[in-house]
Amino acid sequence: MVGLDSLLSAWAERVEADLAQWTVEPDTPVELAEVMRYCVLGGGKRLRPGLVYLTAETLGGDLSAEPVRRSAVAVELVHGYSLVHDDLPSMDDDTLRRGHPTAHVKFGEAMAVLAGDALLTRAFAVLGEMDSPAAGRLVAELARAAGCAGMVAGQVADMMLCDVPRGCEGLRYIHLRKTAALMRAAARMGAICADGEPAQLQAVDRYAENLGLAFQLIDDLLDVTGSAEDLGKTPGKDQAAGKRTHVAEIGRDRTRRLGAELTRKAIESLLPLGQRASPLARLAELLAERTR
Amino acid sequence: MVGLDSLLSAWAERVEADLAQWTVEPDTPVELAEVMRYCVLGGGKRLRPGLVYLTAETLGGDLSAEPVRRSAVAVELVHGYSLVHDDLPSMDDDTLRRGHPTAHVKFGEAMAVLAGDALLTRAFAVLGEMDSPAAGRLVAELARAAGCAGMVAGQVADMMLCDVPRGCEGLRYIHLRKTAALMRAAARMGAICADGEPAQLQAVDRYAENLGLAFQLIDDLLDVTGSAEDLGKTPGKDQAAGKRTHVAEIGRDRTRRLGAELTRKAIESLLPLGQRASPLARLAELLAERTR
Repeated sequence: MVGLDSLLSAWAERVEADLAQWTVEPDTPVELAEVMRYCVLGGGKRLRPGLVYLTAETLGGDLSAEPVRRSAVAVELVHGYSLVHDDLPSMDDDTLRRGHPTAHVKFGEAMAVLAGDALLTRAFAVLGEMDSPAAGRLVAELARAAGCAGMVAGQVADMMLCDVPRGCEGLRYIHLRKTAALMRAAARMGAICADGEPAQLQAVDRYAENLGLAFQLIDDLLDVTGSAEDLGKTPGKDQAAGKRTHVAEIGRDRTRRLGAELTRKAIESLLPLGQRASPLARLAELLAERTR
Repeated sequence: MVGLDSLLSAWAERVEADLAQWTVEPDTPVELAEVMRYCVLGGGKRLRPGLVYLTAETLGGDLSAEPVRRSAVAVELVHGYSLVHDDLPSMDDDTLRRGHPTAHVKFGEAMAVLAGDALLTRAFAVLGEMDSPAAGRLVAELARAAGCAGMVAGQVADMMLCDVPRGCEGLRYIHLRKTAALMRAAARMGAICADGEPAQLQAVDRYAENLGLAFQLIDDLLDVTGSAEDLGKTPGKDQAAGKRTHVAEIGRDRTRRLGAELTRKAIESLLPLGQRASPLARLAELLAERTR
């Protein structure tokens, strides 16, 4: 995705360097460190760190200061943990991720559970260790997004382990938690790092929520239209697993239209922020057009 | 354990009430909330919250203030998460805990993984959400203890997933991380809540480290001598699993002597704190004498 890469290029190197530096704590057993790095440093769009930076930049924050840099790393560590645990045999039982064997296939199930636990914990260490009065608030934002009313709830619902409404309402419930919650947190954390006003926080919050929902719809579409090479994971997996997706629920065309509507809503949410928010709008457009 | 109960009785009710209030976030799916509560509210000695309170009390902290109360809840949530994940089929494959079926036996493996993830995340939310300049530091303490160089490293070593020295040296490596790290964090967090001086922090840190090591030795002994009824878990499990324990390594008598030595070291570490630390000393004695 050339457009996306160039949009995020200003800090892409710093994000990779910070992830390389902060993902693993000194004194970690080398075998565990290897798995943690495998789960996080093997590529990925770095969309969530990008959201932290873009939002902070939009609101005039200092992009080289620790709060922004650590927030970007923390959201990506939480993303990495969620992928590892979601892929487990007892969960989605996925064997391919970003074109490579999933962690439990390569390192065994126990190590995959533990590496996920370690990445999740590390995210909070990276935030807690910074010398900033915002540390507690950033921790609270990330924990709320990741926790029992956020991402974990989304996975519980996606696994049909709790009662969820039928149809698109239920899918919205799942995607708000499983996908949009962490994007909201990333945008809100970026805004907090930039000392954003409540109204600005609300704007980026609504933007990221709609962006996350749109992102998930495109994912569903790509799952039925993409190739393994493009996707880096097994295509048609959701369908074969009988998973609830928008494509199964309302068909490809209506899913595409709903995605476009959510992208429009995301961009509309940025209006209170004015011209400075155009990179965030561009991000929404690029994600809507993506093919992998 | 009557002595222990009475030592911790001054705040036992508050700890239970705070756990009941803070373990589950509002808007959590009821099915997930049930599992989280099952894992945390089904009893337990509340030793780690006790360490937070006893340490804060020793150093003159305000025991009814949010930092102490939230720290106590957070360490118990991390303890609860660690038990659930350690019990998983891919880990220690335990079926009995505190006299009840383990979470994965009762609710399925996926739900057990997710409830553990949720409890771990919730611990950091409980700390991050408080309005205190110490929030970040408390998060960092807890995350360091729980993370890839702490409890996760201990479990990786205990599962023989990394290279660990043979004999007692290796056991010390495991127990320092798997058991003592969280006790150290509990004591340090109590001291931080009481605005302890660096020398005081160091004293409670050394105390809790030795206490944790002694605690694990007693656990190993009880595993070969206790009944299921007393222990609330399957006795002889460590032995049957070929797990490395001090009893297997150096026999019961030398294990007992080593436990007594560590308890003595723990109490000795309290000397710089003077008479006020006698409840902490009493805790070490009670734990050394325990039979379950």
